Amino acid sequence: MDIYNFGKELIVEAGRFIETRMTQNFQIDSKSNPNDLVTDVDKETEQFLYARILERFPEHRIIGEEGHGENISDTDGVIWIVDPIDGTLNFVHQGENFAISIGVFIDGEPYCGLIYDCMKRDLYHAKYKSGAFLNESALHQAENVPLNQSLVAVNPKRILREATRDPFFEIMAKSRSVRSYGSAALEFAMLAKGQISALMFFKLHPWDYTGGSIITGELGYKTTDIYGKDLPLLSSTSVISGNPEIHSEIIGHFTEDKSLHEFHDAFHDL
Amino acid sequence: MDIYNFGKELIVEAGRFIETRMTQNFQIDSKSNPNDLVTDVDKETEQFLYARILERFPEHRIIGEEGHGENISDTDGVIWIVDPIDGTLNFVHQGENFAISIGVFIDGEPYCGLIYDCMKRDLYHAKYKSGAFLNESALHQAENVPLNQSLVAVNPKRILREATRDPFFEIMAKSRSVRSYGSAALEFAMLAKGQISALMFFKLHPWDYTGGSIITGELGYKTTDIYGKDLPLLSSTSVISGNPEIHSEIIGHFTEDKSLHEFHDAFHDL
Repeated sequence: MDIYNFGKELIVEAGRFIETRMTQNFQIDSKSNPNDLVTDVDKETEQFLYARILERFPEHRIIGEEGHGENISDTDGVIWIVDPIDGTLNFVHQGENFAISIGVFIDGEPYCGLIYDCMKRDLYHAKYKSGAFLNESALHQAENVPLNQSLVAVNPKRILREATRDPFFEIMAKSRSVRSYGSAALEFAMLAKGQISALMFFKLHPWDYTGGSIITGELGYKTTDIYGKDLPLLSSTSVISGNPEIHSEIIGHFTEDKSLHEFHDAFHDL
Repeated sequence: MDIYNFGKELIVEAGRFIETRMTQNFQIDSKSNPNDLVTDVDKETEQFLYARILERFPEHRIIGEEGHGENISDTDGVIWIVDPIDGTLNFVHQGENFAISIGVFIDGEPYCGLIYDCMKRDLYHAKYKSGAFLNESALHQAENVPLNQSLVAVNPKRILREATRDPFFEIMAKSRSVRSYGSAALEFAMLAKGQISALMFFKLHPWDYTGGSIITGELGYKTTDIYGKDLPLLSSTSVISGNPEIHSEIIGHFTEDKSLHEFHDAFHDL
């Protein structure tokens, strides 16, 4: 079995692991701040994925939200970028609306992307240059819909800083309406289904966006940072994703703002 | 059959009507602004509900989002307050995540509340002082969780005005995280399930909130305007809903702001 098919089976298996595990007691801790939660289930699921991948492919490397691969500084060979639970707050508060997200890269080039909506049992998947699918169904190519006819996803709490407010608010005001679902992976999945037309974040990590950017990339959606540059595999950055027309319209709101750029680069340690 | 049981059967029947009707072509128009959409399906579903209610209860009166009952100026007798599709933008863009919302009042007092998530086929329902249910299951009473441990729903685009920004942003910043789903009725449903702890809107209409406020009221959640006053049945207003602790915490952010109150009262023509 190749990496893609192995990954598809693995992510569904990990989803079943979460579904079973969440019915038992689990501990909730906080990480960087009191609202950045991590549970035993996040850690155990990452360990589950880690063990299965290395059992099958001992030479592969893995970067995970819960600590694996922190020492990786180059993109040679096969790298799995894994978020065991994207949307941990939803997992804790809602018991649904979270996903496992996986992006696989070979020598720094995208190979495949996988997002599994555990509670809906929906698998979004794409192998580079081979189309994108929801379960067995091919997803449609992106349509060029402008901002003023679009639903746009954003995390409203994360853009309230003085330095970031203005461009984000201008874009939100021009949009048809704003949504916030609390899982970047599921927002990429909604983009892939055409349910929203763009998403924008001031800060995401590679495990939040690599699965989604590969899947939506197959459908013609464009994903970059606020400058329009390709996203890194080994560090956090801002993320703008959407159909080519809305992507360019959104990026246009950021390009002129030099003080934002200084803040952005310092914030992301670029 | 009493009004409550009739209403429960009717709202599910109307949900089936929408599910069938949405597979055919329908026209989309705008109302007060280009983003305030209405479709043939909204209008036909309101007409469907209107005809069924009056066929059974000719003496009842009906207020609907799509124009019924605009001449009603008192709350005597039985009044049905109906939103045929709450979340029309989701209906149009997503094909899911919308609901039918119904609140029934007798001589101005709540009688029953009904919210039907059409695509999930989930019925939230409550008869005044008789508990609240999701389908056949009793829903749990509200737990007092403070803002800093809570998910809070808000419509981010609608609070960007200078006059409203500050208190809403302060509350958002203090919350654990912010969500926006694009349907007040479904946000009340998520409150009833404990998936979010509060919702706040600068402007809703009675058809947006009466079903939800009756259902969540049965579970101990409190719903008022930003001053902490009971909501009107015949005019729009601001809406804050949550468990008693978070409700009081949120209202506290609004009480001191006199310029906001002047803006609020002029905005709602109070």
